[in-house]
Amino acid sequence: MSSSVLLDNLISALQVMPGVGPRSATRIAYALLDRRRAEGLQLATTMQEALTRIELCPCCRNYSDGGKCSLCQNVKRRTSGVLCIVETPADVQAIESSGTFFGTYFVLHGHLSPLDGLGPQELGLDVLEQRFASGEITEAILATNPTVEGDATAAYIAAMAHRHQLVLSKIASGVPFGGNLDSVDEHTLATAITQRRPFA
Amino acid sequence: MSSSVLLDNLISALQVMPGVGPRSATRIAYALLDRRRAEGLQLATTMQEALTRIELCPCCRNYSDGGKCSLCQNVKRRTSGVLCIVETPADVQAIESSGTFFGTYFVLHGHLSPLDGLGPQELGLDVLEQRFASGEITEAILATNPTVEGDATAAYIAAMAHRHQLVLSKIASGVPFGGNLDSVDEHTLATAITQRRPFA
Repeated sequence: MSSSVLLDNLISALQVMPGVGPRSATRIAYALLDRRRAEGLQLATTMQEALTRIELCPCCRNYSDGGKCSLCQNVKRRTSGVLCIVETPADVQAIESSGTFFGTYFVLHGHLSPLDGLGPQELGLDVLEQRFASGEITEAILATNPTVEGDATAAYIAAMAHRHQLVLSKIASGVPFGGNLDSVDEHTLATAITQRRPFA
Repeated sequence: MSSSVLLDNLISALQVMPGVGPRSATRIAYALLDRRRAEGLQLATTMQEALTRIELCPCCRNYSDGGKCSLCQNVKRRTSGVLCIVETPADVQAIESSGTFFGTYFVLHGHLSPLDGLGPQELGLDVLEQRFASGEITEAILATNPTVEGDATAAYIAAMAHRHQLVLSKIASGVPFGGNLDSVDEHTLATAITQRRPFA
């Protein structure tokens, strides 16, 4: 317990953030109070605004400021006809930073998991089917996580895509750059070998 | 850049917190949006309230909810006559968690540093002198950081305390528990040897 109840409240509220335990919460609270009150107040306002106003884009279910998100509004992306299906909004940002994809996205917000109450409806697969049916999409890229649940979800979506005669692909699995072969798990290595590519 | 300007703003505002860089800010923003909107809004409100309402206790200059802080209001502590002088509010909390001090504190919010514009006035030494003069204090414990600046500040306060005929002490310097002697710097080790204590 500190000298101020408000300070104690702040320290405990800060721990809602992932990776922030009691020690870093205390450090953050004192830093804001000691030197950064104005920036801290700005952060509080920004947080309030973001958490109140950010909603799901009706088109791709990614986060948007209201209505269609900026990626779906981009005409070049929309007319590319390529749709990349990912599990989370963070995955969209990860693919965006790779700088290799110029189509639109669809965000599932999870993977099929009947035990957790996550069925096709919860993942927005009805919205996805509408997009497949709209005729705007020619190719779908499955970019769910390379896990059992991710693969099962990808298989379900693949069946949907086949019904609409779409070109379908799945992002490559294999050894990641910069690692050592002996630190890669055997399943990844097995995939890398069975899915080897011709090399000139 | 993500799909939402509000989200980008949140990610950049979160980086005002020490130890939070672009990657953890992104992780925190998505965690709050994905699963913890209500807790995040609560955090924003708590932060706003704390940063607006927390002020300095007129008595010890520690953080308080307004007026005297809870430590200064404690009669047992106030009548103990022992005052511990520290550099920051975080130091108070550190000493409190050690569970060995039951007097009151005085927080300098820094150390004497003329080049940074931190003189006796900025450290509240006029308030401290009033407390020395009040007759309530019988012993002062110097607990500034064991650095050149901390020691200089302690020396300045010691001269003040002498003028008021207070019992004066300084917290012990030496090897910390749980470490190895060979990982302790030579200055600390020299202090530990010259200030060795009789051992029965």
